[in-house]
Amino acid sequence: MLPAYCAFKKIKFHYDSPSKPMNKKNTMTPKKELVADWPALTRTFIRPENEAARSTLIKYMEQILFGLHDFLKTHVGFTEEISLKDLADRFTDSLISQNPEKKLADVITDLIEDIAPHAVNVASPYFVGHMTSAIPFFMVHLKTIVAALNQNVVKIETSKVVSVVEKRVLAKIHRLIYRKNDAFYNEHIQSTDTTLGCFTENGTLSNLTALWVARNTRFSPTNGFDGVEKEGLRAAYQAYGIERSVVLVSKRGHYSLNKAGGLLGIGNQNIVAVDVDEKNRIDLIALEKTIKALTKSPEKTAIWAIVGIAGTTETGSVDPLSKLGEICDRNRIHFHVDAAWGGPTLMSEKYSHLLSGIELADSVTIDGHKQFYMPMSCGMVYFKDPTIMDNVIYHANYVNRPGSVDLGIKSPSGSREANSLILDSALKIMGSRGYGLLIDHGIETARKFADEIDKRPDLQIITPPELNILTYRLCPFDLQEKLAGSDAEQAFSINEKLNDINRRIQRLQREAGNSFVSRTTLKAKHPTEQDIVVLRVVIMNPMTTIEILREIIDEQENIYKNTFA
Amino acid sequence: MLPAYCAFKKIKFHYDSPSKPMNKKNTMTPKKELVADWPALTRTFIRPENEAARSTLIKYMEQILFGLHDFLKTHVGFTEEISLKDLADRFTDSLISQNPEKKLADVITDLIEDIAPHAVNVASPYFVGHMTSAIPFFMVHLKTIVAALNQNVVKIETSKVVSVVEKRVLAKIHRLIYRKNDAFYNEHIQSTDTTLGCFTENGTLSNLTALWVARNTRFSPTNGFDGVEKEGLRAAYQAYGIERSVVLVSKRGHYSLNKAGGLLGIGNQNIVAVDVDEKNRIDLIALEKTIKALTKSPEKTAIWAIVGIAGTTETGSVDPLSKLGEICDRNRIHFHVDAAWGGPTLMSEKYSHLLSGIELADSVTIDGHKQFYMPMSCGMVYFKDPTIMDNVIYHANYVNRPGSVDLGIKSPSGSREANSLILDSALKIMGSRGYGLLIDHGIETARKFADEIDKRPDLQIITPPELNILTYRLCPFDLQEKLAGSDAEQAFSINEKLNDINRRIQRLQREAGNSFVSRTTLKAKHPTEQDIVVLRVVIMNPMTTIEILREIIDEQENIYKNTFA
Repeated sequence: MLPAYCAFKKIKFHYDSPSKPMNKKNTMTPKKELVADWPALTRTFIRPENEAARSTLIKYMEQILFGLHDFLKTHVGFTEEISLKDLADRFTDSLISQNPEKKLADVITDLIEDIAPHAVNVASPYFVGHMTSAIPFFMVHLKTIVAALNQNVVKIETSKVVSVVEKRVLAKIHRLIYRKNDAFYNEHIQSTDTTLGCFTENGTLSNLTALWVARNTRFSPTNGFDGVEKEGLRAAYQAYGIERSVVLVSKRGHYSLNKAGGLLGIGNQNIVAVDVDEKNRIDLIALEKTIKALTKSPEKTAIWAIVGIAGTTETGSVDPLSKLGEICDRNRIHFHVDAAWGGPTLMSEKYSHLLSGIELADSVTIDGHKQFYMPMSCGMVYFKDPTIMDNVIYHANYVNRPGSVDLGIKSPSGSREANSLILDSALKIMGSRGYGLLIDHGIETARKFADEIDKRPDLQIITPPELNILTYRLCPFDLQEKLAGSDAEQAFSINEKLNDINRRIQRLQREAGNSFVSRTTLKAKHPTEQDIVVLRVVIMNPMTTIEILREIIDEQENIYKNTFA
Repeated sequence: MLPAYCAFKKIKFHYDSPSKPMNKKNTMTPKKELVADWPALTRTFIRPENEAARSTLIKYMEQILFGLHDFLKTHVGFTEEISLKDLADRFTDSLISQNPEKKLADVITDLIEDIAPHAVNVASPYFVGHMTSAIPFFMVHLKTIVAALNQNVVKIETSKVVSVVEKRVLAKIHRLIYRKNDAFYNEHIQSTDTTLGCFTENGTLSNLTALWVARNTRFSPTNGFDGVEKEGLRAAYQAYGIERSVVLVSKRGHYSLNKAGGLLGIGNQNIVAVDVDEKNRIDLIALEKTIKALTKSPEKTAIWAIVGIAGTTETGSVDPLSKLGEICDRNRIHFHVDAAWGGPTLMSEKYSHLLSGIELADSVTIDGHKQFYMPMSCGMVYFKDPTIMDNVIYHANYVNRPGSVDLGIKSPSGSREANSLILDSALKIMGSRGYGLLIDHGIETARKFADEIDKRPDLQIITPPELNILTYRLCPFDLQEKLAGSDAEQAFSINEKLNDINRRIQRLQREAGNSFVSRTTLKAKHPTEQDIVVLRVVIMNPMTTIEILREIIDEQENIYKNTFA
């Protein structure tokens, strides 16, 4: 017998007893219904008490691990075989059933047979459109451990050693970025007063946290002013004699920075987008001009952060971090680096130099669920100065007491799962070299892919890979030649046509369900300012080979021939 | 053979080959070292290819499910057997090793044998100090499925059906709260234009989201003003002719509301704490007075939200929600209910009336990892008006496109795991009645416990349970009598002594490691204003019986006798 709630016996529940008439709504025969039953329910909270029960639970886990894997191996899954509309029509019941609808075994079977086939197989090596990929299967084991332990790392009283482990892994990644000496880490790794960084849900919240800290540092308490966190932005502007405050980032900045500007009350129009050079890196001359224009005294504008990007979402470009660091230092501006994507490149012995200058950052965002190959979702943010998070301290009577190891004291989050345990374990299992090999594969495969695209007359590279992301478009050779000799008006019209072609190719390929490439829109400057629709490939899955990438562009060329030519 | 990275062969890595001298730092014999190895690494990304490999993986999962459970069954774990300081001293290595340190099997063994014993056994029925408890073990299975699917619900292209399932479960919980009719849910459940709520990491971020939406609704675009999200708070105050804006909540409000005030730029001092009545509910007369005082015209203050609490963190009290709703409606103020804790009470047939009036709220926070018994961590926020989240819309070129089902369009988060799949499945497995039984057990056991405390002369109830939380303190009978006849000064001194006693009892009990009760500080008004240290019990574990609770207070009385008497 199962010791589980999933084993709801098919018996009458006490309030269904013959002496009591059944609720009129329940007209189905009670015999076949599942009913909520206290003894069965409580058994779901304890461990299985005999071998039969154990093996049933293990059978379920086997179903999950392999039933799911077997299915996922076979398809990409973003197919229109069932349209999203038809799918949505199947999920329109808005009532929670009173009694159990299904047993656990049936729920798992449904998830594997009915949900998984319509989910997206992000693990497929043909799924190269987004920053979500296959993960090593031991990550699933580690996530299971985190769930089974169910620690809440907001406070030591619900996590104890896990908070200590979290502080260690924060130090390890901090050291990867900042390479301070042993004395520094000995002092701070387990200090209850200082903080090297924090875990968040994702890069968006990491960027928010970095800017929150930066805002509060800029508008810290001063003569008669208790600081922006306490008194708010209006009082802060008055105290500091300004009328506007801004953050600067290149046009390739992630949209989460705008969201942070909105949330933090400075207004998202004050996240000022600076032009990029031809390599999609922030244009340093434009940046210096912007700084100069904004700090003219009558304007009364404070620039309190500049964001450099280490791996832009759309093109994988890396801003000139050393130079940005120098500019920030010279102007006394908080320097944040959004390395949500590119951060783990630091573990590559061959390519870590691409991020050179990141150690100058006052704060750095890195995502665990991206190139640390952790399961969704895990963000992190690191700070050069271990005391700077003092600007976002919160205490409460029952938790987060001053001087404790309670990690919730300096964090945008409250209750939080112990994803740090996954990263700590993964670093041990992989070693930095293991991660480095994955980074190398991505960068080198992207370069080979760019060469392959270059060889094909009807494809055109738009942004060559700097890390492991590139964009290109289908642009038939005759149109490429035409474009070269066009004036602005003609070029505009040809590009509009190409935009339409590439939008449709991306959609048709996705709907065919064999592979998935994403699309985005970049701005062309010559011969005229214009949105260019491009196909975007992100190479992070170690199973994605150049052969697979060739198949993917073969398919795109075929779609073009069959649809447009 | 294991098809896994965990199976790192003990072979020399190519750059350790004899032709190349080893790095001088690596002086250990290479034979015994684990090395990063590409073929082994890539195998960790695919499914196991033979039966032997499968059974090894299953063996690990068995180790996790039962090794961990067997251990957790036996102790609470917040013990000072190893002090936190000694524990911290063991986790001070800040370097990521280059090559793998351990195999997966050894990492799992370490987690079970070395980490778990020093984690906190929140699953123990003797762990009654916090809002973290045992979870049904099928939750661990469901979390494993979420990890194995690894969908990113920020966008449809990395989640497809899972986004559709998420919209359905949002509708189910929305209906539990707001009980709108079929037509309403048919219109909105799968609408791409409207939103009934969103998942967040936790209650803290749900409260932030609710207040973010409320702030933006209050300072929405108007004549020549593009709205606070775009232009910021300074411009908003100018456009609306005010100098200050505030949110009102009782003194029992969660600290996340202050944090939200700080983050959102209004300043946390503008989260104004209103007095509570003797039942720890917001004092409505004090509230009306505060509203009147703040809206006197020369003050130029906007009150843009009032927060009601359905289950305060410290005392489990429920504010008079119907009356708060009426006051908000009359004053045209956004009404937010923080039901992070109490929300699931709505599933109890006996006690749902305790939350009556919650349907008047413009927004409601509920936590999945609290009384939905989901694994850490899952917050949610719901909105009465399905269009109100339009005030926090963000788009990007490559994601969150207008008119799509991309759930990231209206959310504080970016990448996000599909915890909605866990809740959707759990509702099917449990039924609302299953959850209702858990709620009933908590409330009824808390009442029995209060009766038991009342019977004991040396214990004193401070806040009787309204839901399933109560506070009390050890207060020897003779001191209780003394207190009754004391003047303010004498009472102050006796209470100080009692505070010390209760602080020490809580600590000593925790250190003994058999059970865990938390402590917090409440404000006494009579005979003098004073902080009172109380012991706090949260009853959510169905295995926590009145017999266990008696043991817990027996132990406290014994600690008192042995230490102080």
